[in-house]
Amino acid sequence: MSPVANELELAEPHLGGVLSAAGLDAEYVRAAGNTLYLRGADGQEIPVLDFAGGFGSLMLGHNNPEITAYTKSLLDAQVPVHSQFSRHPCANRVAQQLNAILQRELDDDEPYFAIFANSGAEAIEVAVKHAEFERSGRLAALAEEVAAHVESARAAVREGAALAPTEAGARLEAARRAGDAEGFEGLLAALARENAERLARSPLFLTLEGSFHGKLASSVQLTHNESFRLPFKALAAQARFVPRDRPEAVKEIIEEERATVFDLSVEGDTVTVTERDFPIFGAFLLEPVQGEGGVRVITEEFARAIQDACAAIDCPIVVDEIQSGMGRTGAFLASSLIGLRGDYYTLAKSLGGGLAKVSVTLVRRPRYRQDFELVHSSTFAKDSFSSHIALKVLEIMEAEDGRIYRMARERGTKLVTTLEALRADFPDVIKDVRGKGLMLGLEFHDQSTSESPAIQGVSQAGFLGYTVAGFALREHRIRLFPTGSAFNTLRLQPSVYLSDEEIARLDAALRDVCGVLREQDGERLTGGRGE
Amino acid sequence: MSPVANELELAEPHLGGVLSAAGLDAEYVRAAGNTLYLRGADGQEIPVLDFAGGFGSLMLGHNNPEITAYTKSLLDAQVPVHSQFSRHPCANRVAQQLNAILQRELDDDEPYFAIFANSGAEAIEVAVKHAEFERSGRLAALAEEVAAHVESARAAVREGAALAPTEAGARLEAARRAGDAEGFEGLLAALARENAERLARSPLFLTLEGSFHGKLASSVQLTHNESFRLPFKALAAQARFVPRDRPEAVKEIIEEERATVFDLSVEGDTVTVTERDFPIFGAFLLEPVQGEGGVRVITEEFARAIQDACAAIDCPIVVDEIQSGMGRTGAFLASSLIGLRGDYYTLAKSLGGGLAKVSVTLVRRPRYRQDFELVHSSTFAKDSFSSHIALKVLEIMEAEDGRIYRMARERGTKLVTTLEALRADFPDVIKDVRGKGLMLGLEFHDQSTSESPAIQGVSQAGFLGYTVAGFALREHRIRLFPTGSAFNTLRLQPSVYLSDEEIARLDAALRDVCGVLREQDGERLTGGRGE
Repeated sequence: MSPVANELELAEPHLGGVLSAAGLDAEYVRAAGNTLYLRGADGQEIPVLDFAGGFGSLMLGHNNPEITAYTKSLLDAQVPVHSQFSRHPCANRVAQQLNAILQRELDDDEPYFAIFANSGAEAIEVAVKHAEFERSGRLAALAEEVAAHVESARAAVREGAALAPTEAGARLEAARRAGDAEGFEGLLAALARENAERLARSPLFLTLEGSFHGKLASSVQLTHNESFRLPFKALAAQARFVPRDRPEAVKEIIEEERATVFDLSVEGDTVTVTERDFPIFGAFLLEPVQGEGGVRVITEEFARAIQDACAAIDCPIVVDEIQSGMGRTGAFLASSLIGLRGDYYTLAKSLGGGLAKVSVTLVRRPRYRQDFELVHSSTFAKDSFSSHIALKVLEIMEAEDGRIYRMARERGTKLVTTLEALRADFPDVIKDVRGKGLMLGLEFHDQSTSESPAIQGVSQAGFLGYTVAGFALREHRIRLFPTGSAFNTLRLQPSVYLSDEEIARLDAALRDVCGVLREQDGERLTGGRGE
Repeated sequence: MSPVANELELAEPHLGGVLSAAGLDAEYVRAAGNTLYLRGADGQEIPVLDFAGGFGSLMLGHNNPEITAYTKSLLDAQVPVHSQFSRHPCANRVAQQLNAILQRELDDDEPYFAIFANSGAEAIEVAVKHAEFERSGRLAALAEEVAAHVESARAAVREGAALAPTEAGARLEAARRAGDAEGFEGLLAALARENAERLARSPLFLTLEGSFHGKLASSVQLTHNESFRLPFKALAAQARFVPRDRPEAVKEIIEEERATVFDLSVEGDTVTVTERDFPIFGAFLLEPVQGEGGVRVITEEFARAIQDACAAIDCPIVVDEIQSGMGRTGAFLASSLIGLRGDYYTLAKSLGGGLAKVSVTLVRRPRYRQDFELVHSSTFAKDSFSSHIALKVLEIMEAEDGRIYRMARERGTKLVTTLEALRADFPDVIKDVRGKGLMLGLEFHDQSTSESPAIQGVSQAGFLGYTVAGFALREHRIRLFPTGSAFNTLRLQPSVYLSDEEIARLDAALRDVCGVLREQDGERLTGGRGE
């Protein structure tokens, strides 16, 4: 190998440098339960207690022994990984099991069809594609209806009907004048031209401020964080981001963005030009508990506002349960706790049991377009290997009448109680404790005017959370991370097997963090790196 | 579980119905080497010889024992799957190993940086995102340069310089008149307005007719097949598809699509309005051997036309080696056989050894933007588990001085010789044999005017290839598939472990197919399904 390639870091070296600056450039050599292991200078393993939990992928812990043993049995059985375009009964069983769970939690027996993919972001891309496929069907039906109205109106005019003066008619007349055709046929030509242009507009997606729906070229447009999204704005259809603290904004924004086409109606010997809405909205996407956005639980009131507004305009709701789902909040779907019902659900992360890469997009039957199956596919998706693991995960979750969900609730309560006690002792340091079940956020007060130059520096750089994470790793061998878009908020997503002793270790570490921040001990917090 | 969900097929039932119609709805229960196994009615396994090869994912065969054993050792060692935002030396070793291979095949020691993802389509999305990130840097530099020129021109005019009459100047003057500002400042306002609008245009991607670059919401725009692409046209930036049989079309289309901004230059006391190109082209993507497009090898002449044209306009070339790469054509990169050098390479499929879901986008250093690492990420990507497997795959490929590549060449020659002999015997049935190494295509003559109503029917429905596949499975227990977009072409992508006996079985099956088509025996070909 040439020395150039041999010496260079070639897999994201810059990111490595950033992690190194925060003291987070650890190399983990083994993982089990809630623990990742470093290799010490003496060759011995150093355990690190992991609260990052694979950003939500580890409901059942690192290398869950039941999953590992089952995976080995799949390998021994030589289960086919690549048998595309054949029957996949295991994927179907996953879909059936998910339906059984959804029916229980949503109290609704309308089935959801399942489309499998390989990552959470891919599941969102599938939802976006399917929503567009379904929307284009509605657009075509609308265009056909308008075409029929045009024929009726043409016949009526031929037989002497007159055009009623309306505002919409005046607008269409203006469009006719901009062309060069005369008379009623000129008006129809203008209508066809105008409508074609309007109907060709890209769909607009609605989602919430603070949203995170992935980072592929289209899904990233639905992710609120501007540094992730704006560089790629020219690539794909756009979203409007609804403020998450004002439910009434949902309707306001829909009102602002709604779009119309011209239509004609005939009554007696009068032809009237009208304008009517067409489906410009691709979908409303939301996470019931925002993960990257700072662990923010959507309220029931907000969910109802979205549900009502979307029902009124026939806009599908995509409930992104990629991080919040799979039992993490104490229910299989976090959205079921706030009374939100989706036309689509996306699941990934823990569906793969901490090992497989598998995701699924569920589409409720009335929205589902079966022809989508003939135009969408993925070589790696729907394979027996990952489907079997997903089925095993669901089996574990559902066992003993949902013991995993009960554990998530019970462990979550224990953890949040500990964090609340911490906040009571350090109200000057901790601003908020939020979340549901085992998806919790701990927000620090802003430190950008800290008296410590080191703390002020890292805070102003948006680096406080990472600096705290570096401190916790260095001093306490605890792995923590801030959320991707709310840098002062630590996100805690341990597995359901979290022990009291592990909670106590976290408590001690966070008390140390809080003490350091209270004392504004920048030297100790940054390990001298901030100076 | 409610009976509704329990009884319904919920994972792509319509696709299942289509497969069933062709007799392809087999359920495979085990896989090893080039064989998939059905379960017979008596419970015994029925071996099926697989030439679909996971659409290119099985260079090393189904459940390769070395990969399986290694995977089990990874599970035993509890290798971390989820340790995001830490050091990933194994991913780096994969990147280094890929670089060593690229340096050898391309005879170029400029390193390529690696960004990992989970599927081939994701690798294309990453390439598209990175290309846009890099393009936006060039746009910003251009805008800055123009802004500096504007300041120079403003100063020159203030000191009495005059505007030279040019065609570009007349166009800008027309733009000024469309606004309402007067004089030179009005002209500058028009320039700013025009340029802002032009620079905000979505990038245009170039690719080839017959291309397949994935099916996510953006990558699908780069896939030529209209039934896959057009329903999603409103979602993302578009591509122009260059005819693959006319190298000169590359330059013609670039000429047609090039776009300009206004600029100013000052020489002495003369200010001249000019128009200059800006980077409207996002990237040129191509597969060196088109897979879905019908197994079509890009010629050296075509590769050179692309290379030259892209160099002239500073447009990056993305070489999609997702299906053709990983040694399948007898070289690691199929593109190295036609003298094509990419700014980007995408790899997936066999990189995962038939088990892991892993893909990578390689970006040549001069194009690489390190800040991309801070804006792009994926929870499932770059994990130690799939990185270790990818590294093992590369180790197997490179072992014994590239024995795998030699096997691909030797087995490919043997297979293509067999297919050529078949064509010689059945020139009335087989139209063409194409491909490189173990990526081969067998094209049947069109049968849409067949004297057999059954054969005519399936052919007119674009279903000839699938019907042949159903016949081969039913009558010969051989798994074949047509390509995704060329329905009369069977694509053969077996593993390098293909035996002479397996080739002989294929030969016998294809001779039967050819005999049936020669005799126009629709009843036998369709198994009565076509009637």
